[in-house]
Amino acid sequence: MGSRTGVFITLEGGEGSGKTTQGLRLSEHFRAQGYEVVETREPGGTEAGEVVRDLLLHRVDSLDPRAELALYLASRAQLASEVIRPALERGAAVICDRFGDSSTAYQGGGRDLGIDFVETMNDWATCGVTPDLTFYFDVAPEEGLARREGRAGGTEDLDRMEREALVFHERVRAAYREIAAKHPDRFRVIPTDGGPDEVWARVLAAIADRLVDGKARP
Amino acid sequence: MGSRTGVFITLEGGEGSGKTTQGLRLSEHFRAQGYEVVETREPGGTEAGEVVRDLLLHRVDSLDPRAELALYLASRAQLASEVIRPALERGAAVICDRFGDSSTAYQGGGRDLGIDFVETMNDWATCGVTPDLTFYFDVAPEEGLARREGRAGGTEDLDRMEREALVFHERVRAAYREIAAKHPDRFRVIPTDGGPDEVWARVLAAIADRLVDGKARP
Repeated sequence: MGSRTGVFITLEGGEGSGKTTQGLRLSEHFRAQGYEVVETREPGGTEAGEVVRDLLLHRVDSLDPRAELALYLASRAQLASEVIRPALERGAAVICDRFGDSSTAYQGGGRDLGIDFVETMNDWATCGVTPDLTFYFDVAPEEGLARREGRAGGTEDLDRMEREALVFHERVRAAYREIAAKHPDRFRVIPTDGGPDEVWARVLAAIADRLVDGKARP
Repeated sequence: MGSRTGVFITLEGGEGSGKTTQGLRLSEHFRAQGYEVVETREPGGTEAGEVVRDLLLHRVDSLDPRAELALYLASRAQLASEVIRPALERGAAVICDRFGDSSTAYQGGGRDLGIDFVETMNDWATCGVTPDLTFYFDVAPEEGLARREGRAGGTEDLDRMEREALVFHERVRAAYREIAAKHPDRFRVIPTDGGPDEVWARVLAAIADRLVDGKARP
C-alpha cells in the first residue's frame, strides 16, 4: 500500500438505526471540507460485490454460516482492493455503509464463528485496510426492527439477515459492544435516542475527538 | 458429523486432462457396485454455488486474489454442508469434479496465497470433510490447453481461469505435485499419456491400492 492520505469512516448498526441518514450528513461534512468523498457499501460496491450482495440478501433462503462469511469476505476483499485503497491513496474521504465489523458482529457473534477469528479473516481479506473511525449506531433490536418493518411495509420485504430472529440480533448487538471494548480508539458507540440532529451532534463530537485535520490521533 | 459410511472421490487436473471422461467411468464403476452415486462439481453444485461459479468464471474480467479464494471457499462450504456430508452419511459414493485441492493449487500456488494457508481454510470451510481418494490427471499445461482450445473452438470460449498465462498453469502444476508429496495416501498422480483405457487402468489400480470395500485403508 502506498502513502495513505485519505480518511476512512465506516458506519455500523442494526436495522433501523438511522445510519443511512447520518452517512449522508457525513458525506456533506467531508465534502464541505474540500474532500473528494467516496460513498460505498458492503456487501457490494463493485461489480462482483453486487452479485455477492444479491446472493447473500435475496437469492437463497439458507446458507451455511461459513459460506456466508466467505461471501462477505469476498465482497470485502474486492471492495478494499478496487475502491477503498485507491481512494485513500489519492486522499479521498471514504464513507462505507458496513465493513469488517459487520462480519465480526453478524458472523463472528450472531453465527458464533468467533470474534477474533473473523477479525483475523477481515485483516487477511483487506490486506489490513482498517477504518480510522467507525460509528456504531446503537438501537435495541426490537425497536430497530419495528422501525425497519414499518418502512418496508411488512416483514416480506425484509432481506435474509433482517428476517433473523430477535435472539440473533441480540447476539449481534452484544458482539458490537465487545468490538467497542476491544477497539476504543476507532470504534464509537453512538446512542440513537433523540432526533437526527442530536445523533449528528454526537457524531461530530466523536470526529473532533478522534480526527485532527482528517488524520486519526496517534 | 454423524457416522460416515460413503466414499468420497475427487477429480483434479489442468485443462484438457481428461478428468471428465474418467469421472463418468468412476460413476459407472461405483454404481455397478451398488452405490448410490452423487456426481457434483466445484465451484457450483448448489443453488448458491452455481451463482458463485458464474461470477468466478464468466461475470467479471478480474478479481482480487483474496476475493477469488473466498468465493471458492463459499461454494465449497455450501456444497460440503448441503450435498457432500449428507450423501456420505447415507452411504453414497460422491464423485466431485474439483474440490479443495483446486484452491490449494490455483489460489495457494498459482496466485501465491500459500499452500498451507489454503489447506487450513479448506478444512475450516468444509468442517474437515476430506476426500478418501483424489485423482490428479497430470498433463503438461501447454498440451492440455491446446486440447481444450481445440474443443472450445478458439480462446474466446475459455473461462477466466483457463485464459490465464502458461506460467500461471505451470505454477498450478507445481503446486499439485507439492500436494501429492504432502498427502501420498489419498492423493494420486495419474499420468494421462496413452488412451482413455490406459488412464482408466491406472485409476482402477489406485482404487484397489487405496480402498478396501469402499473404505480408505487405515
